[in-house]
Amino acid sequence: MVKMKTLTSTTSMGWVLLSVVFASVLVSPVVALWPQPRTFTAGTSAVRLSQNFDISIAGIRNPPSDLRDAVTRTKGFLNNDKLERLVVGRGAADATAISSAKTLSKLTVVLGKNTTTGSIASEAQKPLGTRDEAYFLVVPSDGSGATLSANSTLGLFRGLTTFTQLWYQSQGTTYALNVPINIKDSPAYPYRGLLLDTARNYFPVSDIKRTLDAMSWVKINQLHWHVVDSQSFPLQVPGFTELADKGAYSSAMVYSPSDVSDIITYAGARGIDVMVEIDTPGHTSVISKAHPEHIACAEASPWTSFANEPPAGQLRLANAQTIQFTANLLTAVAKMFPSTLFSTGGDEINANCYTQDAQTQSELSTAGKTFEQALDTFTQATHKAIQGQGKTPVVWEEMVLDHNVTLSSNTIALVWISSANVQAVAAKGYKLIHAASDYFYLVRHVPAPLTVSFNVRSDVLRTVEEVDGSEVIPQGSNSWCDPFKTWQKSYTFNPTANLTDEQAKLILGGQHLLWTEQSGPSNLDPIVWPRAASSAELWWTGPGQSVDDALPRLHDVSYRFQQRGVHTIPLQPLWCALRPGACDLNA
Amino acid sequence: MVKMKTLTSTTSMGWVLLSVVFASVLVSPVVALWPQPRTFTAGTSAVRLSQNFDISIAGIRNPPSDLRDAVTRTKGFLNNDKLERLVVGRGAADATAISSAKTLSKLTVVLGKNTTTGSIASEAQKPLGTRDEAYFLVVPSDGSGATLSANSTLGLFRGLTTFTQLWYQSQGTTYALNVPINIKDSPAYPYRGLLLDTARNYFPVSDIKRTLDAMSWVKINQLHWHVVDSQSFPLQVPGFTELADKGAYSSAMVYSPSDVSDIITYAGARGIDVMVEIDTPGHTSVISKAHPEHIACAEASPWTSFANEPPAGQLRLANAQTIQFTANLLTAVAKMFPSTLFSTGGDEINANCYTQDAQTQSELSTAGKTFEQALDTFTQATHKAIQGQGKTPVVWEEMVLDHNVTLSSNTIALVWISSANVQAVAAKGYKLIHAASDYFYLVRHVPAPLTVSFNVRSDVLRTVEEVDGSEVIPQGSNSWCDPFKTWQKSYTFNPTANLTDEQAKLILGGQHLLWTEQSGPSNLDPIVWPRAASSAELWWTGPGQSVDDALPRLHDVSYRFQQRGVHTIPLQPLWCALRPGACDLNA
Repeated sequence: MVKMKTLTSTTSMGWVLLSVVFASVLVSPVVALWPQPRTFTAGTSAVRLSQNFDISIAGIRNPPSDLRDAVTRTKGFLNNDKLERLVVGRGAADATAISSAKTLSKLTVVLGKNTTTGSIASEAQKPLGTRDEAYFLVVPSDGSGATLSANSTLGLFRGLTTFTQLWYQSQGTTYALNVPINIKDSPAYPYRGLLLDTARNYFPVSDIKRTLDAMSWVKINQLHWHVVDSQSFPLQVPGFTELADKGAYSSAMVYSPSDVSDIITYAGARGIDVMVEIDTPGHTSVISKAHPEHIACAEASPWTSFANEPPAGQLRLANAQTIQFTANLLTAVAKMFPSTLFSTGGDEINANCYTQDAQTQSELSTAGKTFEQALDTFTQATHKAIQGQGKTPVVWEEMVLDHNVTLSSNTIALVWISSANVQAVAAKGYKLIHAASDYFYLVRHVPAPLTVSFNVRSDVLRTVEEVDGSEVIPQGSNSWCDPFKTWQKSYTFNPTANLTDEQAKLILGGQHLLWTEQSGPSNLDPIVWPRAASSAELWWTGPGQSVDDALPRLHDVSYRFQQRGVHTIPLQPLWCALRPGACDLNA
Repeated sequence: MVKMKTLTSTTSMGWVLLSVVFASVLVSPVVALWPQPRTFTAGTSAVRLSQNFDISIAGIRNPPSDLRDAVTRTKGFLNNDKLERLVVGRGAADATAISSAKTLSKLTVVLGKNTTTGSIASEAQKPLGTRDEAYFLVVPSDGSGATLSANSTLGLFRGLTTFTQLWYQSQGTTYALNVPINIKDSPAYPYRGLLLDTARNYFPVSDIKRTLDAMSWVKINQLHWHVVDSQSFPLQVPGFTELADKGAYSSAMVYSPSDVSDIITYAGARGIDVMVEIDTPGHTSVISKAHPEHIACAEASPWTSFANEPPAGQLRLANAQTIQFTANLLTAVAKMFPSTLFSTGGDEINANCYTQDAQTQSELSTAGKTFEQALDTFTQATHKAIQGQGKTPVVWEEMVLDHNVTLSSNTIALVWISSANVQAVAAKGYKLIHAASDYFYLVRHVPAPLTVSFNVRSDVLRTVEEVDGSEVIPQGSNSWCDPFKTWQKSYTFNPTANLTDEQAKLILGGQHLLWTEQSGPSNLDPIVWPRAASSAELWWTGPGQSVDDALPRLHDVSYRFQQRGVHTIPLQPLWCALRPGACDLNA
């Protein structure tokens, strides 16, 4: 089957946009790249990796250290993956092809002329739409060297990642099939993320680093770090250390400034930008431990009347000192993160919390403001603070759809309640990130029924519940939590459904989300992987791919991740993984 | 709150049945024992563990080595658990109580007079209903020694397990609260199991051992080892080694006779009996790799017409050679396992597979037998084989409810399709084990819609699907896969619902079940734990316990397991775990 692929993304593509589109021969599952490159041609020969195989960097006088480290890691994967191909007979099935294969001795990594030679991290941390991730990879079958070229170190890193996925091992031989292979690749969408919540339960830095590694293997380029919430405040913020001192679960369960710096550096070297979220004004109960004066309805009971999840507590948004405190806190946090993106949250504001808070009511009355007017003042002040640090504000959808706040036109909205709300956000002209609970939540977020206490758009929320209830158990099929169904669901999401062509240009990409009410270090990997890889391919390769074609490649992802120490869930019995299609319902 | 507890089980209780029933003061969550002892009194003092704390064995001239090892492991847990108590402030909250506490220097482990001094394993492997698991544990508060007594080494082991759960650590001090504590304990049900499927995906011996450890910590006493199935045959059976040679996923993914012996010994030393299952005549496709002559519809396509799950294939039950082969295989397997229990399976026999198999049709015709008559002959022959090895046959419910086969009156039935079928099995007078998919399946078993190809009681099966569909997503609540809901569901199961008093005596206990279509070594722990602990308490302590009372104790289980290297799922944010009740909907 030969497919012509076109590059349809509205995002910056660098020189790829100018290039001729390749004919792409889909020979999966033999070529088990993930995400599938947007254009490639593949042959039918095999090539063996030389015992003396090496990777050299050309075209850069002093390659940045993170590129050199990436080359070293690439060679490590080639040596250590030891993934036998997923076919009956495993590696032995390829013995004939291997025996006649030529040997590949060299990969030359070339940075284009007249390009910047900044680090991978510096390119990854650029504003969305200006990060150059395109690359061009050629692996010949005739024993001549392979070439990887790009116009940025970030593009080279993406290509190195692809290169590692070509290889299998059998009886000590490392080999690739389907060479010669020519790949010309770049992402469909500039934002390809994963949200990690480190507030409901804490994750050591080592878990975050392992997750960053795994993200990079499928070219996810954005960590959305929901670092604090009502339950705990693990972030040590210079000038605001009392928040973690009194709000972290323990003195050991914190992220120090050097931990944060370490994570940012680690992520950057893997082509990942770190967007921090300090959710405001809701989801802030824990601030009351150090600053009770700033929090309304702190740990009020019954929590169901004051919050969607315990403990209740929201910033006193009508109080001038609280606004200043929040602006200063956000400024201090913004200084810790080089990303141009900063999420101020804004979801699930509970009106009853403020209604029942005498101080807030008094302050609203004195100022002659409604709740919405106060929220507008609060939001403008806090957004001004982060904009002063060069950040673009990112907010949850309620700030666009439910409140009357003034937002900069470049504000980015995260659509989470339902994918049905995407059109409404786009209609208002905001750029947006897909993060809808009905497609991309790795676990259910809300641990309790959504009650009347949540008095904003309760009809919409009820609809979400109903959608979940009906969709998660399709008649006679598997349940919502079934990884197999779930990756299919996110994988087949249509990012531009119901949007005009103009509105479609507002879509920056999307992400899976891990809220950690019932997750911790002990189950992080199997909750996230390989499901989050499904959206990684959706945002990189683009929508409309076939689930049936994807499954064998996703098996490869799962088993290769296991080789690299990430505890993925097997999607099927190994019997099925070894026999592509044999376990499909129509087989 | 003071509760009087009564011992209501119909199973063998040893001397506990003769004893006065204790008044049991429920002071949970401070006393976080799991399973909760059936009778105990607890005080309000603390006691510290001496730096020189030791455990001595009295009353046995030559203690069996597995008891001595259990004592060593117990001391290891006391040293290494390092579990801070789950309260706000953690260990610091107990500083005052600790400072005034006396020191415990000694636990004396005493075997009753006139009792057998066999190993833990030998007692654990006795027939169901004759294993003596009762123990009596006293931990005083005045600094005098603690005493653990029992009439079997198995009882002593159960008491040691309880003893390890009393202790917390804070700043290097190991201490218990709620002393003096007097515990008189024995299980409500003799069969408290966990099923592990090692055929859909393979688990190394180390994973099975870690699971056995964890099982023993909550007093689960039976591993139901579904060792082979249609997908793979990892069991190396003496005299039948061709089955694993050709049917294992790889030569490394096998259980050798010495692996099996190792697992049995490891389990036995932890009070666990290993019941093997060789499922027949269905679920045997893989046997066709070595013996195509014995298998009908092997890997027939479309699989949905021949099996509930690929690959299709069933033993040719009407063929005399196949019957002899099966009987010999079961005999050889039976010799590998000391348990008195042996499961011959018998679930999901697909009639169409035989209808479409010309050889089977010919053999039925020649013999003048119907399918059911042939199944009767097959079953009698295979059961006779294992009975010849001293085993009691265990079968899935279809063998009792759907087929006209002659079963020994001591045959034990596993009810799996639906708990609604328990009454029908009991009405036929068979002892039974609760294993119903609507309460005890850790993941969904069937990877595809139950189709018309499953032509036995399809109405019942459809009902199960519907029950699942409606029950798993309670209105506005969490989903089926939510561990929190799921442990509650199994925990609140009523084992004797709709049964007469006489029928209730047929209930031997029950088990959680892990079918491994989407599980492997990488996600074994979080799929099983702590959910399987919920049924462990149900079968030990008995039904009717409160979910609200249990949750704080189950948090303790989860975090203590993590201390011991088992990757449990956190049931809630740590914020909730530290504040019992605060996250309940009515808080």
